[in-house]
Amino acid sequence: MARVLTAQTEDFPRWYQDVVAKAELADNGPVRGTMVIRPYGYSIWERMQAEMDSRIKACGAQNAYFPLFIPQSYMHREAEHVEGFSPELAVVTHAGGKQLEEPLVVRPTSETVIGEYMAKWTQSYRDLPLLLNTWNNVVRWELRPRLFLRTTEFLWQEGHTAHTTYDDARDYARRILHEAYEDLMVNVLAIPVVVGRKTARERFAGAVNTLACEAMMRDGKALQMGTSHEFGQNFAKAFSIDFLSASGQRETAWTTSWGTSTRMVGGLIMVHGDDDGLRLPPVLAPVQVVVMAVKADAVEAAHKLGADLREAGVRVVVDDRADVQFGRRAVDWELKGVPLRLEVGPRDLAAGHATVVHRLSGGKRPLPLTGIAETVVALLGREQRTMLDDARAARNARTTDVDTVPEAIEACTQGWARLPWAAVGEAGEDELAQSAITVRCLTCEDGSPPDSDTERGLVAYVGRSY
Amino acid sequence: MARVLTAQTEDFPRWYQDVVAKAELADNGPVRGTMVIRPYGYSIWERMQAEMDSRIKACGAQNAYFPLFIPQSYMHREAEHVEGFSPELAVVTHAGGKQLEEPLVVRPTSETVIGEYMAKWTQSYRDLPLLLNTWNNVVRWELRPRLFLRTTEFLWQEGHTAHTTYDDARDYARRILHEAYEDLMVNVLAIPVVVGRKTARERFAGAVNTLACEAMMRDGKALQMGTSHEFGQNFAKAFSIDFLSASGQRETAWTTSWGTSTRMVGGLIMVHGDDDGLRLPPVLAPVQVVVMAVKADAVEAAHKLGADLREAGVRVVVDDRADVQFGRRAVDWELKGVPLRLEVGPRDLAAGHATVVHRLSGGKRPLPLTGIAETVVALLGREQRTMLDDARAARNARTTDVDTVPEAIEACTQGWARLPWAAVGEAGEDELAQSAITVRCLTCEDGSPPDSDTERGLVAYVGRSY
Repeated sequence: MARVLTAQTEDFPRWYQDVVAKAELADNGPVRGTMVIRPYGYSIWERMQAEMDSRIKACGAQNAYFPLFIPQSYMHREAEHVEGFSPELAVVTHAGGKQLEEPLVVRPTSETVIGEYMAKWTQSYRDLPLLLNTWNNVVRWELRPRLFLRTTEFLWQEGHTAHTTYDDARDYARRILHEAYEDLMVNVLAIPVVVGRKTARERFAGAVNTLACEAMMRDGKALQMGTSHEFGQNFAKAFSIDFLSASGQRETAWTTSWGTSTRMVGGLIMVHGDDDGLRLPPVLAPVQVVVMAVKADAVEAAHKLGADLREAGVRVVVDDRADVQFGRRAVDWELKGVPLRLEVGPRDLAAGHATVVHRLSGGKRPLPLTGIAETVVALLGREQRTMLDDARAARNARTTDVDTVPEAIEACTQGWARLPWAAVGEAGEDELAQSAITVRCLTCEDGSPPDSDTERGLVAYVGRSY
Repeated sequence: MARVLTAQTEDFPRWYQDVVAKAELADNGPVRGTMVIRPYGYSIWERMQAEMDSRIKACGAQNAYFPLFIPQSYMHREAEHVEGFSPELAVVTHAGGKQLEEPLVVRPTSETVIGEYMAKWTQSYRDLPLLLNTWNNVVRWELRPRLFLRTTEFLWQEGHTAHTTYDDARDYARRILHEAYEDLMVNVLAIPVVVGRKTARERFAGAVNTLACEAMMRDGKALQMGTSHEFGQNFAKAFSIDFLSASGQRETAWTTSWGTSTRMVGGLIMVHGDDDGLRLPPVLAPVQVVVMAVKADAVEAAHKLGADLREAGVRVVVDDRADVQFGRRAVDWELKGVPLRLEVGPRDLAAGHATVVHRLSGGKRPLPLTGIAETVVALLGREQRTMLDDARAARNARTTDVDTVPEAIEACTQGWARLPWAAVGEAGEDELAQSAITVRCLTCEDGSPPDSDTERGLVAYVGRSY
């Protein structure tokens, strides 16, 4: 059978494009850099959204909505922020048939407009912490767009919080990072992220600290999967977010922001996908099991089996298209990354079993129909753990411990290098940059994210990235 | 106690503004006509979204995402559509620091861009029907904005479908109208909508048939709560949505679109709210029951009661702010429209009961703590039915059957008029328009929506509207 996809080892970026197209995840939009997310791609994003939304709410944040259009003047209030975003802005100059008096920026992120309302809503220390989250679309003009990874318009959640003290803001930025982001990435997406601090060079525009979850793709490159920022009092000063303290003093708040986007879908594809297409972790997969009727005489049995699995809480699709060639259907479900395929044919039925095919291993064996729902639930759990273990093993195998920047550059042809931050520093970052390599993040020796770049014993993860 | 809100009878629009502000539903955005949806307002919208999303999926449509920016040329392909929307468009002329070669329209609706992709995805009759839905934000420049009801940017779902035959398209537009929209409005929002057909004058730009759900507000005016459109083959021709039929002919598809928006929140406020604030139907309410600890010594008991109710599936908040004045807290929960308030004080506890206060009637009585969760669940069900009955009775009381247009104009000072469409016609619509009255919709005598304006015995609902 002819290959549907370019092989990963042959041309990884092309493999990625092929998967996105053939698994019907997304199309290029009519405007350069924009994206049409097709139903199957969107169903994956919806599952990520639901899992993320419940974790964010469990961390105490509430959802709200803020406008798409931001007065241009707002962007200028925080100096580093406007400098960071100016080159990427889309600007509305005409509306309602007239030229506008003040041009409107299409939000690239909502720090400024949310800052304005936080100031309005925050009177006393009793109003804090103010923990907000919003799901929306943002626009950043991209010169080198790539579906899911870097698009002019993307979907995301952005959280924004205001606190009475530095410590409270610091702790909350970390709480979201670990309890929402890391937890979702590891336990739902089966992606073993490294969680650390960005160097000054890589920080978000206006932040005093940027924490990030970094994942390794199957080509050894890094993808930033989510970030959580502390702004100190920068935004609070620029937007007058202040409050009357318990002792009656007027004080300036401390703010944070944090975001994850449709980019996670790109990461999911590139961490787990193989030459046959997507491979979705069962906890996330919109379809966990496809029951395939081999021929028309098994359609009824396939639906019965589907109903049994559904009752056991499994997300099932029954493929009863007996008039479509079996091989073509099987290839399509492999492309779409459905974790388990249950094939039902007259011989299977006569023998009292169905044939299970594992997307992960390609392994195929008969499963007795008696008690099959329980078996399938157990298999799905096992596949989820295996995917995380495999991804961690692959990442570790491609992460090389080195001592110097030149050694790191050499190691990064294969994956990541890990070396003492003391051996890198700003001069080392310049040197790495010449080979298109960046410090992805800094961690303490125990793997936790540090509070400053100057702590002793920091470890730098460096690599090429998307 | 001083009134928090303007009385409805004194100034209904001002009452509306007051409720939106005091119940912390929304604020005006920084750009004229835009809206900030605050957490409590957004939690109401999220519940509507979830209820609508599951109904739309039950009708077989799949969610997807299409870009915010539309090339200006797309808007021009369907003549009536561009004419309808041109005065309301916001236009991006600059992006990435440069003037764009072709200006981009910020979507006012997505018929055009979705038409482009439907054409791409539709090859054969096997690809149809194509049933898509998308949740997004759209922009229509508004000269007289009003929070939730008419904002420059609003949140909505827009569904778009393509079919092989006129009948299939017609049936699907009606299926969504009844099974998703009407069902949600009646059974979740407790709003007894009239479901009918728009006259040619009131149709959506480019549609050959617009069906709508119309609700009566407490001031007797109408609000269009949702619409479902048939486009015939207009869009399919403009965007070349065609397919190879089973008999091998190239045929043009038939398309529909349908939408409901954050405007439903405005309708909910104006159908059920009273001089003390919102009143939320229990099925929708983000908080169905608030358990109030009267003083500090009842906080523990309040939390225990809260946990019991939560276990019974009730959405509960425990108000343990014993340091805040009781009356102030009670007024706040009334403003927010929480259906039931359970007050717990030491005397209640000693007597083995809690005091229930109904938001709907203001009625107050003791409830035995034994078996209280079951009682509360039953009370919530009863309140839901009462709200729908009350709203229907109020609507019927303000709907007058008349025979002529002048009588209709007279009747519309109080509410709606209902009269034979044969007594109105296009000339009658002109006459009504001079009194700012429109035909809200046409129904058959049995209350169902007709397929044309020329059927015999059609009834016209006319009234002022938002």
